[in-house]
Amino acid sequence: MTYLYDDPAAFAEDALAGFCDLHAGAVRRVPGGAVRADRPARPKVAVLPGGGSGHYPAFYGVIGPGFADGAVSGNLFTSPSTQDACSVAAAADSGAGVVFSYGNYAGDVLNFGLAAETLRARGIRAEHVVVTDDIASAPPQQAEQRRGIAGDFVVFKILGAAAEEGLDLDEVVRAGRKANAATRTIGTAFSGCTFPGSDTPLFTVPDGQMGLGLGIHGEPGLRDLPLPSAAVLAEDFVGRILAEKPGGAGDRVAVVLNGLGSVKHEELFVLWTRIAALLRESGHTPVLPEVGELVTSLDMAGVSLTVTWLDEELERWWRAPAATPAFRRGETRHEPAAAPVAEVVAEPAAPRYAAASPESRKLAEAVLDGLRAVRKALHGAETELGAIDAVAGDGDHGRGMVRGIDAALAGAESAWHDGAGAGDCLAAAGDEWAARAGGTSGVLWGAGLRAAGEAIGAESGVVDVRVVVDAFADRVVRLGGAEPGDKTMVDALEPFRTALVVGKPWAEAAAVAEAAARDTAALTPKKGRARPLAERSVGTPDAGAVSLALIVRTLAEGIR
Amino acid sequence: MTYLYDDPAAFAEDALAGFCDLHAGAVRRVPGGAVRADRPARPKVAVLPGGGSGHYPAFYGVIGPGFADGAVSGNLFTSPSTQDACSVAAAADSGAGVVFSYGNYAGDVLNFGLAAETLRARGIRAEHVVVTDDIASAPPQQAEQRRGIAGDFVVFKILGAAAEEGLDLDEVVRAGRKANAATRTIGTAFSGCTFPGSDTPLFTVPDGQMGLGLGIHGEPGLRDLPLPSAAVLAEDFVGRILAEKPGGAGDRVAVVLNGLGSVKHEELFVLWTRIAALLRESGHTPVLPEVGELVTSLDMAGVSLTVTWLDEELERWWRAPAATPAFRRGETRHEPAAAPVAEVVAEPAAPRYAAASPESRKLAEAVLDGLRAVRKALHGAETELGAIDAVAGDGDHGRGMVRGIDAALAGAESAWHDGAGAGDCLAAAGDEWAARAGGTSGVLWGAGLRAAGEAIGAESGVVDVRVVVDAFADRVVRLGGAEPGDKTMVDALEPFRTALVVGKPWAEAAAVAEAAARDTAALTPKKGRARPLAERSVGTPDAGAVSLALIVRTLAEGIR
Repeated sequence: MTYLYDDPAAFAEDALAGFCDLHAGAVRRVPGGAVRADRPARPKVAVLPGGGSGHYPAFYGVIGPGFADGAVSGNLFTSPSTQDACSVAAAADSGAGVVFSYGNYAGDVLNFGLAAETLRARGIRAEHVVVTDDIASAPPQQAEQRRGIAGDFVVFKILGAAAEEGLDLDEVVRAGRKANAATRTIGTAFSGCTFPGSDTPLFTVPDGQMGLGLGIHGEPGLRDLPLPSAAVLAEDFVGRILAEKPGGAGDRVAVVLNGLGSVKHEELFVLWTRIAALLRESGHTPVLPEVGELVTSLDMAGVSLTVTWLDEELERWWRAPAATPAFRRGETRHEPAAAPVAEVVAEPAAPRYAAASPESRKLAEAVLDGLRAVRKALHGAETELGAIDAVAGDGDHGRGMVRGIDAALAGAESAWHDGAGAGDCLAAAGDEWAARAGGTSGVLWGAGLRAAGEAIGAESGVVDVRVVVDAFADRVVRLGGAEPGDKTMVDALEPFRTALVVGKPWAEAAAVAEAAARDTAALTPKKGRARPLAERSVGTPDAGAVSLALIVRTLAEGIR
Repeated sequence: MTYLYDDPAAFAEDALAGFCDLHAGAVRRVPGGAVRADRPARPKVAVLPGGGSGHYPAFYGVIGPGFADGAVSGNLFTSPSTQDACSVAAAADSGAGVVFSYGNYAGDVLNFGLAAETLRARGIRAEHVVVTDDIASAPPQQAEQRRGIAGDFVVFKILGAAAEEGLDLDEVVRAGRKANAATRTIGTAFSGCTFPGSDTPLFTVPDGQMGLGLGIHGEPGLRDLPLPSAAVLAEDFVGRILAEKPGGAGDRVAVVLNGLGSVKHEELFVLWTRIAALLRESGHTPVLPEVGELVTSLDMAGVSLTVTWLDEELERWWRAPAATPAFRRGETRHEPAAAPVAEVVAEPAAPRYAAASPESRKLAEAVLDGLRAVRKALHGAETELGAIDAVAGDGDHGRGMVRGIDAALAGAESAWHDGAGAGDCLAAAGDEWAARAGGTSGVLWGAGLRAAGEAIGAESGVVDVRVVVDAFADRVVRLGGAEPGDKTMVDALEPFRTALVVGKPWAEAAAVAEAAARDTAALTPKKGRARPLAERSVGTPDAGAVSLALIVRTLAEGIR
């Protein structure tokens, strides 16, 4: 249960603001996250972990010498936007490039990937290291599809140490990927967390059971098993981890025993004695083990064990000093800053809009009306969309869509007041949606609306909806990479587009989209979900497809 | 809910063992707690915080340079025993004396007080600093009766810094008492914690409410109020604290915003922004504020705000560096140890028993039978005794009595095997009860049984129960300082003694004790309870009196 908040929708930003106030000497808030308060004495690679909020001390709690140079921080359990990632990277770069690192989730992969492309186009070298440590989420043959959970901590720590040594971008990336390849995590959940403003947890575990294979975004465990004693749980964890010991690995290991939020230190210490004994019996030597709350999920009750097999250089980086608000190791010999980070990050220049015809201005009013209608519909459906998403995911879809449409309408209204025509109003809506909503749906809806706006332009007072929907769909399909049958919004979008193309009126095409969205219940997701969760989702439609159908149905009133 | 444990009764020891394994380079386990792994280069005052377990990082998490030299750690929410405190003090003393510091609870006051006396008799200077920061637990006129809660952290930190400066014992004590006098805490609870092995929390708070005036031992809040927003709660907290600003205090303050266990960092950061703004508006400057989990109560949901008004020396001590497993500040210039702490703490010499007559050996068998019968009865009543105690207290009475009788029987059996007579068997039972049970009841039952054993001696095969009960009661009354009507075990003990003195047989006297124990329901405790909790206890009998009545009733079978 989350008890302390003011505006639930602003919870993540309020928390970040409080953290930055508290550690004003060490960190500085920037749009999209936070960075170290001082610049390094010489250019160094900036290590930038990131992801949704709700995992403190991940990710902004470990900003500091020897660890992260900044953190990109999205809304609760929601990927930051591409803009967030670019903003933090621009503030943190000292000339040697940046490396984003994040757990393997579709929204993060999409947004950090786009951000790296954008930064490169601006002349900032940008790479990324994806963490895939959760052995419960996919079999070893599909290790690259695994989720990132508490292994994040080890990978980020090693990236930070490698960068602090002065290695170049390629070497830092190599260090991080090597750490990830040597890292395995298994976790178990006892109860779910509850979002601010909600009074029901994202999931529950039956009494006397535990959900093996936890997620850190309110996903339930992958299968329920009887709750064992600490000694038996330790055997289970260590057995599963050792079964995946990498070929050729030695016997020295970094270990993280991580509490998710309301499993407390005393319990972790009890479990630690059992785990340490089993690791030693198996011939392993734990090196500077960490037992505590390193990657949390609000107040979720759960625990995970992470083991990273160390070679000489990985051990050197794991042992290296670090000084951050939430984690200290050894004594850092931090060189004084060459100069404080500039206090003001350049704001993007005010957008300039193409000169709009009176007809396009008139059409822009219809665009605004449409966005207002969609906004009302999405607010009304927020809870339902979240519930659909929570069956096998993190339950953030409703909130993400609401944040997106709120930002989009505000962006379109602002553009309209600045004299923009219909196309620029819709493009501005897309830009704001992508910037504020984060997540997979945020980046896709944002980019799709921008493409649709570009197709509309600033001249005409009428639109061919087939051209506009084509532009939207092309951009979404290309960016998201989903194919029909993957159980995504594309499964509603493509039949909708086809219905328009063959000449059906909007309302009939919307009905086709609704039917197609319902039919996604029979599908199994092809990517972006841990395997057992993907199977659990059968019987429930895809939340993104349901949203799309709801939106086109809502617009049917205005578009005939 | 506590999920991870093996033997619930050994939970606190298992956790301490895990902590000491994890931080083997920094701390060393000793009977009754832990001490720093290395001795200081020169003699320095040893600062020894202590109390029951379940409050991590309080108390053993802050062992290290600049903070604690050791920690005395009792069972869950139960005062350590006098023996625990003496053991840790003997291991930590480097020749400059020790200062115990602990929250103001009857069991801690009793056990640490006795320990200080014992140590002085052994030539170790020993003082104590009692923390009384909880403004909800008694009005300002009775400030010395207040409980100690998260203010512990500030007082312990300042004691540690003063000792690290090389001040002598009197000066260190002065620093600690000055810090306590300048410290105020207010807290609120949202839900209670659950003991390992139990499936019900120690208390619950109705939905949409909070219990203002929290305890840290599973005591409920002192009054239920509607759950406010973070901004409103901040106003309430700051208003209550500022209303108790000490006369002549300045405007610089140490601040601790403490989460009790499952109120998470993100929530604390949100609340912090509101509190920081209000403190600054009131003209105060927070100095190195700490926001996190500093004094917890297992996984209880709750939050407290501590403010300590600083003068120049208090600020110097608050800012001073510290390096402990759970708390780091600045860089410590720790002098290497002169010598490692001796690995083996001298065990007490094996007890020698007076030569016992055959009659006394025979009587000792009856003593053992009596202890076995009492053990069975207390195990059967454990849950009920805990429930009675939980109405207005910390619910540990049942567990404490069970630990006590288990240890007592084992001690008596061991003495019997070593050839002891009846008196020494009972005295050994008392010594073990006091050493293992902790808490108020532990020290009183332990001392009472030893006195009873001394009255029995090693010669006679018969006892005058009036003499034995007199010895027991005299010791309990003198040590505990309770008077009839204070709502303690004395309210059953004195009528029982009187009934025996006037010639009633044991069984009738036991019935008198039972009636007297029931009658304690009408009383209000006179000490050792926060005022509102004392009032809440009216209608429920005193758990200690109920235990005593149960024990004498059980013995009625054997003593006619």
